[in-house]
Amino acid sequence: MNYFLSCDWGTSAFRLRLVETGSGNVLTEERSDNGIAGAYQQWQQTSLPREDFFAAIINRHIDALSERTGIPLQEVPVVLSGMASSSIGMVELPYKELPFSLSGTDLAVHAFSRFIIISGARSGNDVMRGEETKAAGCAAWLPDTTQDQWLLMPGTHPKHVVVNNHQAVRFQSFMTGEFFDLLSTHSILAASVGDDGTLLNDPAALACFTEGVHAGQTENLLHAAFMVRTNQLLKKISPAHNRFYLSGLLIGTELKAVPPGMPVYLVAGPLHTPLYTLACQVLNIPVAAVIDADEALIRGQRAVLKYG
Amino acid sequence: MNYFLSCDWGTSAFRLRLVETGSGNVLTEERSDNGIAGAYQQWQQTSLPREDFFAAIINRHIDALSERTGIPLQEVPVVLSGMASSSIGMVELPYKELPFSLSGTDLAVHAFSRFIIISGARSGNDVMRGEETKAAGCAAWLPDTTQDQWLLMPGTHPKHVVVNNHQAVRFQSFMTGEFFDLLSTHSILAASVGDDGTLLNDPAALACFTEGVHAGQTENLLHAAFMVRTNQLLKKISPAHNRFYLSGLLIGTELKAVPPGMPVYLVAGPLHTPLYTLACQVLNIPVAAVIDADEALIRGQRAVLKYG
Repeated sequence: MNYFLSCDWGTSAFRLRLVETGSGNVLTEERSDNGIAGAYQQWQQTSLPREDFFAAIINRHIDALSERTGIPLQEVPVVLSGMASSSIGMVELPYKELPFSLSGTDLAVHAFSRFIIISGARSGNDVMRGEETKAAGCAAWLPDTTQDQWLLMPGTHPKHVVVNNHQAVRFQSFMTGEFFDLLSTHSILAASVGDDGTLLNDPAALACFTEGVHAGQTENLLHAAFMVRTNQLLKKISPAHNRFYLSGLLIGTELKAVPPGMPVYLVAGPLHTPLYTLACQVLNIPVAAVIDADEALIRGQRAVLKYG
Repeated sequence: MNYFLSCDWGTSAFRLRLVETGSGNVLTEERSDNGIAGAYQQWQQTSLPREDFFAAIINRHIDALSERTGIPLQEVPVVLSGMASSSIGMVELPYKELPFSLSGTDLAVHAFSRFIIISGARSGNDVMRGEETKAAGCAAWLPDTTQDQWLLMPGTHPKHVVVNNHQAVRFQSFMTGEFFDLLSTHSILAASVGDDGTLLNDPAALACFTEGVHAGQTENLLHAAFMVRTNQLLKKISPAHNRFYLSGLLIGTELKAVPPGMPVYLVAGPLHTPLYTLACQVLNIPVAAVIDADEALIRGQRAVLKYG
């Protein structure tokens, strides 16, 4: 098996990558805004079997990829994780209960035709879909010890996954990204929060971010969030800079969950890596490694494929 | 002066009360959805002086009140606080800097024709408009000592005002009410939060509320908020009950700001009084008095009128 197809089907976007199995290298990819929520709605209008309907959508994308590259892909396995196993996905699968091994051997998997669907994982009171695969994809970076390691996975709903002895033993979800979106667009703070621009190298923006990170550690979030408004009103901080205060405030609040001295593995993409790296610096949280989230996903899918 | 008119002009609603000055009793009132934001937009379409334009709107309401009651009101003074002095109000007034006396003698006041407009107050990094008048209206309940007393004022943006020696010396704003609205209607939690109904006497709803209050005190809000979703998903808590978890979580988080053993004066209306009273019980916060927020407003306006 020289290749596999890695499918990342989110609520509002679709991404398909052709991966060289041995090296894990991505040869080419196909993207669309054909998100799983829309696909589910379309399926509800039909009388087709659910898995067949979803498979047909993926197969059309694969055909396009095959035509574009000239590589025959009809036999290549497709690995899906995340929303594909959700209530609006290709097939709803029960969550794997914690703990699970980072080897990828004991995640819940459902095979259909050439599709391998990885289910999410749950604890007694929390759930994830997709991050369990990324966690497995981090195995190569993590020491095989009985000391806790902390996987920090930013996003709309960040996850903190605690690994011990190459087992994911605990995790928590946060709402950092969604709070940022809600507060910066739908709340009274919207007028005090401007566009990002290219301010990441602007000392004034970074000072606002740092102030926010500290406030997130020490202040009551319900109060400190209102400071986004008074920063602009009383301190005349520009909305573009003030955006970084809100970002720092929320990330600083999230990172209160990291125990002092805990080595953190940051599993993130280009949007979150600089902000979380800086927040960890400000808070003296040691970052043992920065792992690209896409690479973690592909490595995790490859691990499941190997043992599945 | 036997009467005055108490005007409560919010962003999206208008309320005018005819008050007997001596007793503070409300004789009758007039309400409309003619909020100040809409009035400001209408004024921007005209070339009229701003104060005249706003005065004309109030005068129309007063004429309606006069016609309905048969009481001549042309000479009666009108006291306004809150949004009337804001950037979208009748006239924008600078905030009074802390401290201010609960006697109402040193609040910032602007008189125009028969209108007396009370401005807001500010600290070094926080602002309020309206609550300073309510704080003055609480004077009769508060002991004249150098021990701190804590005015707890729920709302979209609750205020905690610390009073000492009948002076408001510190305060903080919170975003509790707005967070509740954002999370229960615009976030991923919306599907897990149902209508209120009449559940305040339902033990299961109150158990959810109490659990939320405790979580607000001990958990990271960005994590505990996600539990609204998993409560419904994993614990099968109904959205109607789960609504009380979210409410308790946010109020419990807000009340972390109250120092242990601090006597609290709850200045609230019928919506918030039962929830905040219960939260204080759960957290062993002694409630020295419950003060009706409307009554506090009218008493504060009357105090300013007396000394203004």
